[in-house]
Amino acid sequence: MWGGRFASGPAAIMEEINASIGFDKKLYKEDIKGSSAHAAMLAAQGIISAADYDEIEKGLKTILAEIESGKFVFSRKLEDIHMNIEARLAELIGPAAGRLHTARSRNDQVALDFRLWVREETDKTIQSIRHLIETLLDRADQEVETLMPGFTHLQVAQPITLGHHLMAYVEMFGRDLSRMHDARERMNESPLGAAALAGTSFPTDRFMTAKALGFREPTRNSIDSVSDRDFALEFLSATAICAIHLSRLAEEIVIWSTAQFNFIHLPDSFSTGSSIMPQKKNPDAAELVRAKTGRINGSLIALLTIMKGLPLAYSKDMQEDKEQVFDAAQSLELSLAAMAGMIGDLEVNRDVMKKAAGSGYSTATDLADWLVRKLGLPFREAHHITGHAVALAEKKKCNLSDLTLEDLKTVYPDITEDVFDVLSVEKSVQSRKSYGGTAPQEVRRQIDYWKKRLAKA
Amino acid sequence: MWGGRFASGPAAIMEEINASIGFDKKLYKEDIKGSSAHAAMLAAQGIISAADYDEIEKGLKTILAEIESGKFVFSRKLEDIHMNIEARLAELIGPAAGRLHTARSRNDQVALDFRLWVREETDKTIQSIRHLIETLLDRADQEVETLMPGFTHLQVAQPITLGHHLMAYVEMFGRDLSRMHDARERMNESPLGAAALAGTSFPTDRFMTAKALGFREPTRNSIDSVSDRDFALEFLSATAICAIHLSRLAEEIVIWSTAQFNFIHLPDSFSTGSSIMPQKKNPDAAELVRAKTGRINGSLIALLTIMKGLPLAYSKDMQEDKEQVFDAAQSLELSLAAMAGMIGDLEVNRDVMKKAAGSGYSTATDLADWLVRKLGLPFREAHHITGHAVALAEKKKCNLSDLTLEDLKTVYPDITEDVFDVLSVEKSVQSRKSYGGTAPQEVRRQIDYWKKRLAKA
Amino acid sequence: MWGGRFASGPAAIMEEINASIGFDKKLYKEDIKGSSAHAAMLAAQGIISAADYDEIEKGLKTILAEIESGKFVFSRKLEDIHMNIEARLAELIGPAAGRLHTARSRNDQVALDFRLWVREETDKTIQSIRHLIETLLDRADQEVETLMPGFTHLQVAQPITLGHHLMAYVEMFGRDLSRMHDARERMNESPLGAAALAGTSFPTDRFMTAKALGFREPTRNSIDSVSDRDFALEFLSATAICAIHLSRLAEEIVIWSTAQFNFIHLPDSFSTGSSIMPQKKNPDAAELVRAKTGRINGSLIALLTIMKGLPLAYSKDMQEDKEQVFDAAQSLELSLAAMAGMIGDLEVNRDVMKKAAGSGYSTATDLADWLVRKLGLPFREAHHITGHAVALAEKKKCNLSDLTLEDLKTVYPDITEDVFDVLSVEKSVQSRKSYGGTAPQEVRRQIDYWKKRLAKA
Amino acid sequence: MWGGRFASGPAAIMEEINASIGFDKKLYKEDIKGSSAHAAMLAAQGIISAADYDEIEKGLKTILAEIESGKFVFSRKLEDIHMNIEARLAELIGPAAGRLHTARSRNDQVALDFRLWVREETDKTIQSIRHLIETLLDRADQEVETLMPGFTHLQVAQPITLGHHLMAYVEMFGRDLSRMHDARERMNESPLGAAALAGTSFPTDRFMTAKALGFREPTRNSIDSVSDRDFALEFLSATAICAIHLSRLAEEIVIWSTAQFNFIHLPDSFSTGSSIMPQKKNPDAAELVRAKTGRINGSLIALLTIMKGLPLAYSKDMQEDKEQVFDAAQSLELSLAAMAGMIGDLEVNRDVMKKAAGSGYSTATDLADWLVRKLGLPFREAHHITGHAVALAEKKKCNLSDLTLEDLKTVYPDITEDVFDVLSVEKSVQSRKSYGGTAPQEVRRQIDYWKKRLAKA
Repeated sequence: MWGGRFASGPAAIMEEINASIGFDKKLYKEDIKGSSAHAAMLAAQGIISAADYDEIEKGLKTILAEIESGKFVFSRKLEDIHMNIEARLAELIGPAAGRLHTARSRNDQVALDFRLWVREETDKTIQSIRHLIETLLDRADQEVETLMPGFTHLQVAQPITLGHHLMAYVEMFGRDLSRMHDARERMNESPLGAAALAGTSFPTDRFMTAKALGFREPTRNSIDSVSDRDFALEFLSATAICAIHLSRLAEEIVIWSTAQFNFIHLPDSFSTGSSIMPQKKNPDAAELVRAKTGRINGSLIALLTIMKGLPLAYSKDMQEDKEQVFDAAQSLELSLAAMAGMIGDLEVNRDVMKKAAGSGYSTATDLADWLVRKLGLPFREAHHITGHAVALAEKKKCNLSDLTLEDLKTVYPDITEDVFDVLSVEKSVQSRKSYGGTAPQEVRRQIDYWKKRLAKA
Repeated sequence: MWGGRFASGPAAIMEEINASIGFDKKLYKEDIKGSSAHAAMLAAQGIISAADYDEIEKGLKTILAEIESGKFVFSRKLEDIHMNIEARLAELIGPAAGRLHTARSRNDQVALDFRLWVREETDKTIQSIRHLIETLLDRADQEVETLMPGFTHLQVAQPITLGHHLMAYVEMFGRDLSRMHDARERMNESPLGAAALAGTSFPTDRFMTAKALGFREPTRNSIDSVSDRDFALEFLSATAICAIHLSRLAEEIVIWSTAQFNFIHLPDSFSTGSSIMPQKKNPDAAELVRAKTGRINGSLIALLTIMKGLPLAYSKDMQEDKEQVFDAAQSLELSLAAMAGMIGDLEVNRDVMKKAAGSGYSTATDLADWLVRKLGLPFREAHHITGHAVALAEKKKCNLSDLTLEDLKTVYPDITEDVFDVLSVEKSVQSRKSYGGTAPQEVRRQIDYWKKRLAKA
Repeated sequence: MWGGRFASGPAAIMEEINASIGFDKKLYKEDIKGSSAHAAMLAAQGIISAADYDEIEKGLKTILAEIESGKFVFSRKLEDIHMNIEARLAELIGPAAGRLHTARSRNDQVALDFRLWVREETDKTIQSIRHLIETLLDRADQEVETLMPGFTHLQVAQPITLGHHLMAYVEMFGRDLSRMHDARERMNESPLGAAALAGTSFPTDRFMTAKALGFREPTRNSIDSVSDRDFALEFLSATAICAIHLSRLAEEIVIWSTAQFNFIHLPDSFSTGSSIMPQKKNPDAAELVRAKTGRINGSLIALLTIMKGLPLAYSKDMQEDKEQVFDAAQSLELSLAAMAGMIGDLEVNRDVMKKAAGSGYSTATDLADWLVRKLGLPFREAHHITGHAVALAEKKKCNLSDLTLEDLKTVYPDITEDVFDVLSVEKSVQSRKSYGGTAPQEVRRQIDYWKKRLAKA
Repeated sequence: MWGGRFASGPAAIMEEINASIGFDKKLYKEDIKGSSAHAAMLAAQGIISAADYDEIEKGLKTILAEIESGKFVFSRKLEDIHMNIEARLAELIGPAAGRLHTARSRNDQVALDFRLWVREETDKTIQSIRHLIETLLDRADQEVETLMPGFTHLQVAQPITLGHHLMAYVEMFGRDLSRMHDARERMNESPLGAAALAGTSFPTDRFMTAKALGFREPTRNSIDSVSDRDFALEFLSATAICAIHLSRLAEEIVIWSTAQFNFIHLPDSFSTGSSIMPQKKNPDAAELVRAKTGRINGSLIALLTIMKGLPLAYSKDMQEDKEQVFDAAQSLELSLAAMAGMIGDLEVNRDVMKKAAGSGYSTATDLADWLVRKLGLPFREAHHITGHAVALAEKKKCNLSDLTLEDLKTVYPDITEDVFDVLSVEKSVQSRKSYGGTAPQEVRRQIDYWKKRLAKA
């Protein structure tokens, strides 16, 4: 396989550590597609004959069919997907197969195959993120007036609506979408034709293969073409950030579906039971989505570590790139689908949420703002006075809105009856009409914005 | 400081773990700039009086001057930069200071300050990367005909030129540049005015503050605005990938400046000596640049881990974001500067490089290509024959070009005299004219492309 | 500083990237202690004179006093703590200072200083973990009969006691303790005397310096001595695992102190307020402890990445080891102290916990076990029947123990009156007497075990 | 499968994200072994009948045989290895199968299975590390007098021997061995019998099952037993540190086998060729070993991230633990084997190494030491003088030992003829007899120490 120079074959341990066919066979489609484009170009440039090209093309089609029907026999002795396909091609069409590798090396071949795979996966991820966003938009639409407590530090802070809360995730996944688009654009250059690292003396046309494979243009530097794995690193980075967003939503699902919060009810289809405790309904899907962020962080750090300090051009270390990306891509896709499923199907306990929205003195800020607006107090003083009102309510074990005007006057004598207008949860929410705020009309505007933006892209 | 409700002050340990002033004072400029924009808007919207605004503006200017002259006394009791400045403002201008915090919270304030800082740092990083690229372009220009061995697996593969090799790094840093630009564009939205998390009932104008602070527009969702740290994560990701590129170049500098390679000579200004071995000149700067990638990976994984599973909106965990970004940004900037210094100043041992270019049977591929082109052999067969030629040269302890025609004919009888045309290093390099290849004319084209591209952006 | 060979001094950028005095001055005590032990050995072996030794010793004492009183002027030009101290020693005692560096190099000197620091920090960490364990034991003692729901998947699973729950953390921190002890034992070898990397031709006595510095013995291989940073990596690993434990407890504190759970009440001393919402009491300390795990993971991955692929012996990359360990050690210490403070001071809402313990059909397993024990059903069948009982209670919106015997008989006719003996929370807890189980007597045994074990070690 | 309560089955996406049978079937032996021990205990304690026990035991044996012969049909609907085996047991032996799960839960079952697997893997790793150490010892024995340059910063520092260099790795892997032993001891407690989390009311004997499964004792706290994954984290940490050591040795193999260094010649069995460059022999095995450290770091960070902030007791997130450990364990084992193969088989180019040992003024320290010893100069002054001697030799383009006495006297007039005794590489190496130094007699002592230590353990 590597010329007539090796006296002895690789030891068994070497075969095991060295062979990549166990995982890179996933790239069979990309490999065949690349070979096909390369052969067409070689023929167009007169580097190989039309007859050879026809043979090659026919042979590649046969191999594709063999692989897809499960008949292809992969051999670990042949190391990787490239050599497996090439060897089979030689069996099928004889010497013409040997002409396919003209002006090409495994270095640019694997760079191409893997890049095609990552580009395809980026496109799939974009679709999956869009689907999740659409699910969130639908849900937000339904819950645009559903009152709930807004939390900071998981402590009740101010009343918000569930629609508003869900739209925060739309923003996050919207950024993920945009990051994936940028990554795709940046990786969309064809490394094919860089050969081993230095380019080739054959009169190739790299623009032709780039176009045939859907790339914007060929890469500009042949050494970089075979030693670059930025496209994988950037995909992993964007994946990791997206997984963080999913983990936050997953954590909320876990917490909200506890008996204590009871804000939501997970559908049976995304829960599991217990082998010992017959009453359990566990939010397994949400927990698994939360956990995937660990796995994806691991893949990112793995490839960053692998690439650290590698001299140019190709080093075998880079063979370790694929499994990390395969695993992270699959984890993200599964997580996005599971999350879309959960969000679409979960039941909201609106009464419980609304009641909780009014607990914890959640309208204290509204009282402070009233003191500023109506009595002209500096905010800091208003804040201080409100603190005393909260302490009084705590002592009386009641809500702020349950304090009497007399009570409030003991805290600050100038307070008047109309303060009660701002102490209810509904009024509080409606009042927050600032751009991006929680007032239903504002949230509806956000929903519209995103529907239009998705429709455009 | 947080209202009249706390019976006892925070314990000493709490103060130590909780206070962020030790590091967030770095944000003083951003904090003052944000407050100034906020106050102007409050005044324009009639939320505070023009007189109060004037007081606030004057006070903020005084504070800025105090901090920059080192006179400002930071207090850990006041926790963070926001409260330190606000408390001083109150001392300076009295009750008007208390009006500045109207329609604002520390949550959106810190989100703003930190985002401004990261945006500024992104701009600086963009400049530093450009400077390094320009240095590389200059150097590549000088070395466009300097022959050297191209390596794969750190084994001599094919002859290339140093100019071509350096241009591979231009491609990498060029992608870094583009990633930083994308990150900047994505983060360029103003969170100011999101208040605690729900927006505000005051009639604020978030577009006015956004514009004043150089943002494209205000953020669309107030909950996301205070709980988002994507801008920091994306900056860290882009930084980590750039650091990987630096580590690869640093590794090459370390290896190339060994006695054994002797390809380059590092300037004294980027080397150090030994406390015990008087003869040593160590490539410390390159080693430190290589090591920084570990540090930056650490910061990235730290913030990813911190953000994992945090419920909305703000949680105190997020206070741990700053030091990671500060440290990574400084590490990258230092590394970029040190690398530009080394690249600009290093001496190239052209003779040594050229000699090495011809070693290790580096033109074997040229022989194989000749067999394909001239004798019409399939590449695989040509590859096999060449393997035998290499084995023969190894046995004779000579280079491929030192074999006689007779020698070569024992390997394959049809080989003719003109094969020697392709076995020299110079010819090999000149022949690789494919797009992106190592031929000097191709490398010059690459250099021109980048000069024009930088000039445009 | 590094001999007469360098034509030009290091550039400004080089000084900035190269100098470590900014952080390694923290090692001043270790450096002086090591120099003192080295000088005593040199004198004892006749390598330096007694008079020189006296001078050196006196000079080192003066320097120690100068540093501790803040009078010492650190210089970045002198790079690091070793050269700063050596240069000052030369000022103080003249040529004798130059003899101190006999048979020593900065390579073994820094390996020694840093190892001494990590060993000391390991001892401190051991004390801090012990303190936290003792706090947990005290608290567990008080709460050995406090009923609460045991959770899996954050869903109510079976009733347990708070004492039992806290003892789970004692086991975790107990393992941390044991890991720290093992790490200490493994690192307790003296690298001093390895010199640059090859040992020395002077007749040194490394056992003498090892003993003087409290080491078990000298390291066995001089190359390893200067290139090893395992002691730092192992300390970071143990720190990271301990931080994970802290993050789990912190997460529980955050969740338990929500209005919805309301299981505990955090002391004011470990909470903070809000700048905008006057009613808030936030569990900041717990959140910060939770976040520190990200930071510590970052330090671990940083040093692992830095050490990856470094050829022997010392490389300058290794200078990046210290800040990572300093930061992680401080983060862990602060977290342990804050956690001990919170655990010691938090108020338990026993009534709320007890009520929650009975919710969510928490004694369903007890019903299933009763069916097995009393009616001889296979567990799987019992589990199935219990599932139906839970469904019935859900339909009736009551607890399992509120079902009538008739209700239960509709599920399985052989059920008898005495089933109610196992359906109460108290009975459930008391019955779980298996080794390690939640029955108070078992938990008391666990507490005793740990008190004795701590007393012994 | 989880009782009669779920109206609908899990959705397809749920099945895909939830099922672990794809990877946890690897635990079949451990699961059967654990069930067997559990059943024996249940029978001994009279909880199940002897007849049921016999049936269970027979059924488990049948299942073991079915799995090992490849006849067992795994079902994803049955989620995991535990339910797959239990379901098959029910088919084989009927109702008795349902009694096996008495006093047990999947929570303690999986904790047991996984711990048994990690313990077994730890034992295997210990054997693999021992094998590598033995290979290194053999090689060190052969190369105890082989001169080579000792490097710091990859610059020639002082002459050492290859035997000494290899012994540095013996120290590293020796620490790995000791870390693995400590980890094994710490994990060697049986979680079986903790049940869901609270223990059980059945009169189990956890000491009996612990003993039967080779554990030191049962775990002490049932909640910790099911929520602890420290054993996995500690195994991963120890694995990561060991991988770092391997990566350093791998890097050296890559560098040493370049044409430029040419210190060693890798055996064909651990090299591969190129698909385009017929002359290449690439150190693929070494590069892959180097890369595995990235993968293992990834696994470590993945599990640390997954465990961060998980409330007690079991959460489904923890299902993500296994693949990380499986992958890291396999990567380490493969790397250890490949490294032992490479070290055992590589050819050393002793002449090249020896020549290099004398280059780069490697005996400069010996000159400085001579000045101290013979002329009584302070080391710092001697160091400075030697710097001038090196500069002179550089100017003359010769080695230090090639300078004449006159040359040396221009640098320092008191230098005498016998200085040449220390300027040869052989003399330099022989003189470094300090404990742990590079003198052959010292290295032989180190080899003896390790041979004895391994023989003992």
